Amino acid sequence: MKRILSSQLTAHVGATVRVAGWVHRRRLLKSVAFLIVRDAAGLAQVVVTDPAARAALEQLTEETVVEVTAMVVATATAPAGVELTDPTVRPLGPPAVPPPFDLYRPALTATLPTQLDNAPTALRHPTRSAALRISAAAVAGFRAALDGRDFVEIHTPKVVASSTESGANVFALDWFGRPAYLAQSPQFYKQLMVGVFERVYEVGPVFRAEPHDTVRHLAQYTSLDVELGFVADHRDVMAVLRDTLAGMLGAVTERAGGALATLGIAAPRVPAEIPAVHFTEGLKIAGAPADEPDLAPAHERALGEWAMAEHGSDFLFVTGYPMAKRPFYTHPDPARPAYSNGFDLLFRGLELVTGGQRLHRYDDYLAALAARGEPVEPYAGYLDAFRHGMPPHGGFAIGLERFVGRLTGAANIREVTAFPRDLHRLTP
Amino acid sequence: MKRILSSQLTAHVGATVRVAGWVHRRRLLKSVAFLIVRDAAGLAQVVVTDPAARAALEQLTEETVVEVTAMVVATATAPAGVELTDPTVRPLGPPAVPPPFDLYRPALTATLPTQLDNAPTALRHPTRSAALRISAAAVAGFRAALDGRDFVEIHTPKVVASSTESGANVFALDWFGRPAYLAQSPQFYKQLMVGVFERVYEVGPVFRAEPHDTVRHLAQYTSLDVELGFVADHRDVMAVLRDTLAGMLGAVTERAGGALATLGIAAPRVPAEIPAVHFTEGLKIAGAPADEPDLAPAHERALGEWAMAEHGSDFLFVTGYPMAKRPFYTHPDPARPAYSNGFDLLFRGLELVTGGQRLHRYDDYLAALAARGEPVEPYAGYLDAFRHGMPPHGGFAIGLERFVGRLTGAANIREVTAFPRDLHRLTP
Repeated sequence: MKRILSSQLTAHVGATVRVAGWVHRRRLLKSVAFLIVRDAAGLAQVVVTDPAARAALEQLTEETVVEVTAMVVATATAPAGVELTDPTVRPLGPPAVPPPFDLYRPALTATLPTQLDNAPTALRHPTRSAALRISAAAVAGFRAALDGRDFVEIHTPKVVASSTESGANVFALDWFGRPAYLAQSPQFYKQLMVGVFERVYEVGPVFRAEPHDTVRHLAQYTSLDVELGFVADHRDVMAVLRDTLAGMLGAVTERAGGALATLGIAAPRVPAEIPAVHFTEGLKIAGAPADEPDLAPAHERALGEWAMAEHGSDFLFVTGYPMAKRPFYTHPDPARPAYSNGFDLLFRGLELVTGGQRLHRYDDYLAALAARGEPVEPYAGYLDAFRHGMPPHGGFAIGLERFVGRLTGAANIREVTAFPRDLHRLTP
Repeated sequence: MKRILSSQLTAHVGATVRVAGWVHRRRLLKSVAFLIVRDAAGLAQVVVTDPAARAALEQLTEETVVEVTAMVVATATAPAGVELTDPTVRPLGPPAVPPPFDLYRPALTATLPTQLDNAPTALRHPTRSAALRISAAAVAGFRAALDGRDFVEIHTPKVVASSTESGANVFALDWFGRPAYLAQSPQFYKQLMVGVFERVYEVGPVFRAEPHDTVRHLAQYTSLDVELGFVADHRDVMAVLRDTLAGMLGAVTERAGGALATLGIAAPRVPAEIPAVHFTEGLKIAGAPADEPDLAPAHERALGEWAMAEHGSDFLFVTGYPMAKRPFYTHPDPARPAYSNGFDLLFRGLELVTGGQRLHRYDDYLAALAARGEPVEPYAGYLDAFRHGMPPHGGFAIGLERFVGRLTGAANIREVTAFPRDLHRLTP
């Protein structure tokens, strides 16, 4: 008999079926016992009345893996409208050692550190697994949106020869006796690949040796990277980002509806055109001094409120950040060279995505590095490609865990990360 | 005027259009000059007769990025049946420095090391980019096949606390002052996640500090990992692998047909049921002594020939490899415990995929490690999950570059890798 999932029971009323999963909970009442089996699709309620079966059930600790062959009966009072009766319960392994928290309670009551120390079992809790299902759906939507726009998926090196981009916060590595570093982003590689495919994306791990212990930072996270060529300026990039976000949230709704329901949330609507304000205008709206070089968190929150009040939008683009605050490869605004063709996307007043147009002329790179007093040598291999013809281009990067964290309202990014890596945590 | 791609020209005969791309080649004849523009979709031929335009064209070196506004004319003698006439050519950057090889020749004549040293330009050659397009299509097919079978995509740590699995061939890392290692595979994590989602997959980088310089090994490659629970034995895993492979090759044919044509190859057919032989039977077929503990490359070749002759199949499963040759987490064949429930998939006589059923009981892990004289401690965090209830499960891993290399008949795996990492190579 082929195993069916708990979600398929309603289609088998009156039939004998086989289900399998984990002992989620037992309720041993006086006259009857209930066994709740958890599988990938949800829960199934098994009714045990036979004394021998009940005695066996008493030995089956929570999280033991079992197989149940039983009759499906429609019961209005059962959680899913069906239950399994007259069961044969067969353990598929020894009785489980119960985890240090009850997985059957609506919320995981253990502290986050305890959850993270016991991730393999904590992640079995529906609230924790729901966030990871939303994550998988968001990535599927990301890819589908870009595949539909002729982007090509790439895979780039995660170990590099020089600590480019920021210099600080890199992990050092011994590469066959040579010094090497974990890649902080695929930035340079995705730009180079614009020279090959024009439009590329990558989903992969990036590494930041963040010395700070915050609720927003991970030392390894999943970066959703996009880069496209033949843009007029950053606005072409923003249009692709808008469509990509809509695709991601559409896929979350479509593919992870159950997970959204578990968490009691809905995916926000992405406006057909996301409102955009220039950085200088943003300062005014936020009531900040006109000479501020960047937006503080309080300013971002004020802008988020403004976007909702003025445009009914959870999202807001802030464009034209000062060049001084953006990386050296950022393209300036030709009309106002102190400001960039770079943008941030705020989601409910929090920065969610950074992107912009990049420099595409070799000489501009040399000038940008010289102006910052940075040497050319560490970037030589990367810059060389710009001597061989690169189109105007730009792109953006979305931190997957940050995206899911904000969507789900998680207080700590580690709540939506299966096995986080940070200053203190290297296991499990 | 919106830019169109070279592949869209035939739909615009008689109209003025804008195309953009790289100067692929110029042919300066006496009475006429041709400019071949390469974009993401292919080539466009531009006819230049105006003397001033010709003089300008003479300054546009190969690989310069240009935008061309011109009239589309149907011409039976032109390569694609259309060409662009009366053009206005505008460079989108300074004249390019030509790469150290001609990208317009049918084959890249530069040696592989020269190509790899100049990867950002070498990858622009249609034969090199075709392999990467096939790669992207194969991964898309991999995901689609598994998404359709209720698998959930996961992202696992690439930095781990102990050098598990093999002990040798790991890259050591400084993690905030603590020793750490690059993950050689997501093996343990994907098994743990079977406890959460039952069926999971991951596409991500893995790292092997291979001290050998061969045409088959990379120090970083992309691993396509799958793991599923509630299997009867390894045959359930093989069935999923068969469907996954069919999905991958179907997607390659569907999404990368042009790339296959560029390379002059076709995707092989995956039989509805891939033939399978037990290891002991395989030795006999290959004419090897019955006490051989493993299949040598010559044996695999012989088996590949046999599969084609007997079953008309490019693929062959070899099951039941001796336990002594498989990793400690391998599940033995209950009927013949010296042999495993592990398998290899051969493609045209070469090992392409390794997989099998895994142990799922904590005590079995302890016994397996003890039998090998291995300590439990480095695996403690991983093994702990098996005390909390794990179903019978198994999985497999496909090396993406190896898969594409064999599909395309590449002599060296580096030919199908954008920016390979190996014993000698850490740049670009």
